[in-house]
Amino acid sequence: MRVLVYGAGQLAQMMYLAGCPLGIDVQAVDVSNDTVVHPVSKQPLDTSLAQAIEAADALTVEFEHVPERLLEQAARSAKLMPSIDAILVGADRVREKRLLDSLQVPNCPHKVISDLSELDECIDLLGDKLIIKASRDGYDGYGQWRLTDTSQLDELKLSLSGLDLKTVPLVVESMLSFDRELSLIGVRGKGGEVKVYPLAENLHHQGQLHVSVAPAPQVSLALQEKAEAIFKTLAEGMDYVGVLAVEMFQCGDELLVNELAPRVHNSGHWTLSGADISQFENHLRAVAGLPLGDTAAIGPSAMINVIGCSSFSRDLLSIPGCHLHWYGKSVRDKRKMGHINLVAKSYAGLGEKMHTLSQYLPLEFFPKLVNEAQRLSKC
Amino acid sequence: MRVLVYGAGQLAQMMYLAGCPLGIDVQAVDVSNDTVVHPVSKQPLDTSLAQAIEAADALTVEFEHVPERLLEQAARSAKLMPSIDAILVGADRVREKRLLDSLQVPNCPHKVISDLSELDECIDLLGDKLIIKASRDGYDGYGQWRLTDTSQLDELKLSLSGLDLKTVPLVVESMLSFDRELSLIGVRGKGGEVKVYPLAENLHHQGQLHVSVAPAPQVSLALQEKAEAIFKTLAEGMDYVGVLAVEMFQCGDELLVNELAPRVHNSGHWTLSGADISQFENHLRAVAGLPLGDTAAIGPSAMINVIGCSSFSRDLLSIPGCHLHWYGKSVRDKRKMGHINLVAKSYAGLGEKMHTLSQYLPLEFFPKLVNEAQRLSKC
Repeated sequence: MRVLVYGAGQLAQMMYLAGCPLGIDVQAVDVSNDTVVHPVSKQPLDTSLAQAIEAADALTVEFEHVPERLLEQAARSAKLMPSIDAILVGADRVREKRLLDSLQVPNCPHKVISDLSELDECIDLLGDKLIIKASRDGYDGYGQWRLTDTSQLDELKLSLSGLDLKTVPLVVESMLSFDRELSLIGVRGKGGEVKVYPLAENLHHQGQLHVSVAPAPQVSLALQEKAEAIFKTLAEGMDYVGVLAVEMFQCGDELLVNELAPRVHNSGHWTLSGADISQFENHLRAVAGLPLGDTAAIGPSAMINVIGCSSFSRDLLSIPGCHLHWYGKSVRDKRKMGHINLVAKSYAGLGEKMHTLSQYLPLEFFPKLVNEAQRLSKC
Repeated sequence: MRVLVYGAGQLAQMMYLAGCPLGIDVQAVDVSNDTVVHPVSKQPLDTSLAQAIEAADALTVEFEHVPERLLEQAARSAKLMPSIDAILVGADRVREKRLLDSLQVPNCPHKVISDLSELDECIDLLGDKLIIKASRDGYDGYGQWRLTDTSQLDELKLSLSGLDLKTVPLVVESMLSFDRELSLIGVRGKGGEVKVYPLAENLHHQGQLHVSVAPAPQVSLALQEKAEAIFKTLAEGMDYVGVLAVEMFQCGDELLVNELAPRVHNSGHWTLSGADISQFENHLRAVAGLPLGDTAAIGPSAMINVIGCSSFSRDLLSIPGCHLHWYGKSVRDKRKMGHINLVAKSYAGLGEKMHTLSQYLPLEFFPKLVNEAQRLSKC
């Protein structure tokens, strides 16, 4: 069994590591130059892309921003999972909003505009606090702008004036006051069976995910069920196969979908040690037509991203239930270098482990850690 | 960080998979031709053995029967862990017995002979039920003979007559009636710190391990402590670094050491899903000088070897807590093709899962499975 993954970053690497024990050989495509590479060493393999597509049992993606010509080539093989439409939904906010609306999935009030003159109308419709997002190639906070007061409108129009809105329209959203961001990672098999992990709570800093806690604390059964119903509506609506991540805002008892990621997702990395079967193995099981694995949480888990730094004491591994996942990349500002998983028996225990962890790390790179440790310690 | 492993089988592969997330690159040496290969694909890497030794931070072994000239070359680098002496103890039953006796570790009554005429003396000393083992290259039941009645003595001498006992002496042991075989997997770090997993119970068939259950049922705290004390005596006695497996016979409250394996061991494969940190990761942590990881069991686990068959339904993955580990080898009679781990919350639950598992497998290749499922169900 062989699976070809478009994208050769850490997600492909973690799929490879999950595939080996199952006898699934994962190869990766470096989409910058159409070469097939080893997902860990990144060394080119002795095969062309066309040959690799031919030899693979399934094709999938580790990120949604794969060039469309490659996705179309992949789709022609009839082995691409999820489908090209589902992948493009994740890559294009206009398609995403259209899907959410057509399936009547609650999401933020919004308007799509292809001319800056429409911004005034948006203020009338959506209020004077707005988030403006480029419909394509937005990633980790890039391609986003904010309006917090109408006095900024002229300045905003100026900074947007260079964009070709006819080709890449903008999605304008109300800036909602929400309680927190949650995400649901779930998986749908070829036969339509669905398994979902418990909701995770995500903490961002400057547009990047820094910490996920799963199961998210203080989630009622009703809220988890609401999230699962949303997941099923979306996954069935797209006839989806594989892992799908749904980012949501919680506003009281309501959940508004913010974003879809048609792939394994950073907010699901906790499943590597916090669940019996990880999102990576479940994604492979889905696209390989194998039974889906258990998605229950073993205990409260935290995933802490290591961003923009590589220099810290590996003695943090002395913390029981602490797992390091290192991606082997050269360090760059804001680059995700790896992540650290913690598993505990209680939220208070998780908070304590997080506090211990903070003593091993350069805290300027971990702005969410200490506060979250304190919050969990009181749970 | 790079670790070079002598041997390129499934143990090196599982070390590689454990090393990746820690940022430890594991390379393997195919000792049949002195080439350095990728531990999963087995493809030759672009390096000579001498270069690989030079570039590695640590050298280790996945099996003890590495040619001595290679072990000596490795030892000269001063990076070999465990030491060449410890490895040779595992490869040579005479050295092994000498070590056990010198450290006063209980083991089976035995005598080393280098002439067949000494067999009669053995019967006087050890009784007329004997196991005769070649001192070297015995592996999985090969190189072993039995005497169950003195009337077989002449026939036995005949079948041993072709051996060069001056070079490879025989170890003659009393055939003890023991309650069961247990094994203790433990790890010792560079600084002398020790962590041990709970005892596993091992079920053999025709000299091959078929099933391990861990923690072994009905082990008193005193018995576990006795096993741990034996482990510490041995590990400290050899100034050992890495994972060491100690196979023991339980006779009532007594433990007699049967065999040492200076490496990760088949009876420790359950740790891949039954403990927070597996024996593979702990071995790497030890030789890399990292803190050792938690060795407590998550719950009752079973490891079922897949021997000599590859054709069975992968639908067994639908069993919660079931993990397949496939080694990617071509099928041969009696060859270990992979293993299946099961984790449960209770022994009875483990027995039920094992029973469910048995319905997916060709039982002629799994002679221990059904009985063990029944036994555990009653625990």
